[in-house]
Amino acid sequence: MKIAIIGTTGMAGQAIYLEAVKRGHDVTAIVRDGKKAQTILGASTQLLTKDIFDLTSDDLANFDVVVNAFANHQASYLNLDALTHLLHLFRQSAKRIIFILGAASLQLNPNEILFDRLKQVPDNAAWIDEPRYGVLELDILRATPDVNWTGVSPQQDFIPGPASAYKTSDDSIIFGRDGKSHVTAGNMALGILDEIETPQHLRRRFTISD
Amino acid sequence: MKIAIIGTTGMAGQAIYLEAVKRGHDVTAIVRDGKKAQTILGASTQLLTKDIFDLTSDDLANFDVVVNAFANHQASYLNLDALTHLLHLFRQSAKRIIFILGAASLQLNPNEILFDRLKQVPDNAAWIDEPRYGVLELDILRATPDVNWTGVSPQQDFIPGPASAYKTSDDSIIFGRDGKSHVTAGNMALGILDEIETPQHLRRRFTISD
Repeated sequence: MKIAIIGTTGMAGQAIYLEAVKRGHDVTAIVRDGKKAQTILGASTQLLTKDIFDLTSDDLANFDVVVNAFANHQASYLNLDALTHLLHLFRQSAKRIIFILGAASLQLNPNEILFDRLKQVPDNAAWIDEPRYGVLELDILRATPDVNWTGVSPQQDFIPGPASAYKTSDDSIIFGRDGKSHVTAGNMALGILDEIETPQHLRRRFTISD
Repeated sequence: MKIAIIGTTGMAGQAIYLEAVKRGHDVTAIVRDGKKAQTILGASTQLLTKDIFDLTSDDLANFDVVVNAFANHQASYLNLDALTHLLHLFRQSAKRIIFILGAASLQLNPNEILFDRLKQVPDNAAWIDEPRYGVLELDILRATPDVNWTGVSPQQDFIPGPASAYKTSDDSIIFGRDGKSHVTAGNMALGILDEIETPQHLRRRFTISD
């Protein structure tokens, strides 16, 4: 398939890129800094060098699936703005777009999401905006019937590491045998490529864990 | 003041434009169709002819206040997309932007907004998306601390008509002596120009009624 990955030089983007190439897909890295991308991903990487906010429908017209792995951990409002910009480009089309979301919107139980606990942590001002915007991103996706979207949340700990095997659930956080919620970038990439090849969560969010 | 109005040829935009000119402000109409705008507003109207989704921060840098009166009643997802596009342009700046919202997010009572009733109306598929997106627009504004926004809702009946006198409330729908919720475009324009000249609802929504 023709797959484009936005934000390919980040932890998630790199892992998805490598897994997609390994499976023989025709993959394009959409990045702002082409030299950086080719240093990280290899000199033969197919590039579309453009800021996410300058992307147009025409730029994305030739891909079967676009994966948005863009994440800005400082100016986290840009994550929300990127999502709404991309939704605008994909409205009223059958094209598929997969958004990597945060973990804060995962259900701890039927009445509580992870964000409900995070916002009670003292002195959270430095980092609370990213999960706060992440929750809103999912709200916006769920209010979007005219885009062929899928949302994918990692676990609370989203860490570098290889692919091994993964589990999924729809909206519930997954705790491993160690009592922690974690997923490696490699396992996220496995789960996302399986979802790309065999769509199972159209207009839904799911989560991947180790 | 230097005021720009987006969507100046619609009912609300026209009324705001005329009131702003009447009060001696330096007003620019941001429209897609310049000829149509000059036919409606007068040949001497200052124009910025551009699609809302092509507007950049630079386009808007010289205005003291931008009023977004864009409203698409058919493809109502564009109202949401326009709001998020404009928020992106105004983030982290002190520039002021005023959004005209719908009435569906107004409180009927502390536990119920107008939308809660609208969504129970049978056979609402043809029109429910516009109020549905309108509610989400206010949710997004309220989650946006880094933009100097004000939201203005009309009443349930937002109708052509001259300025006379107006009332406001913060979030509660206002029923007139006739038991109905209504505001004319002229009265909306009065209330909005007063808010522009004397800001009273920074990062808040308020509503205007006859």
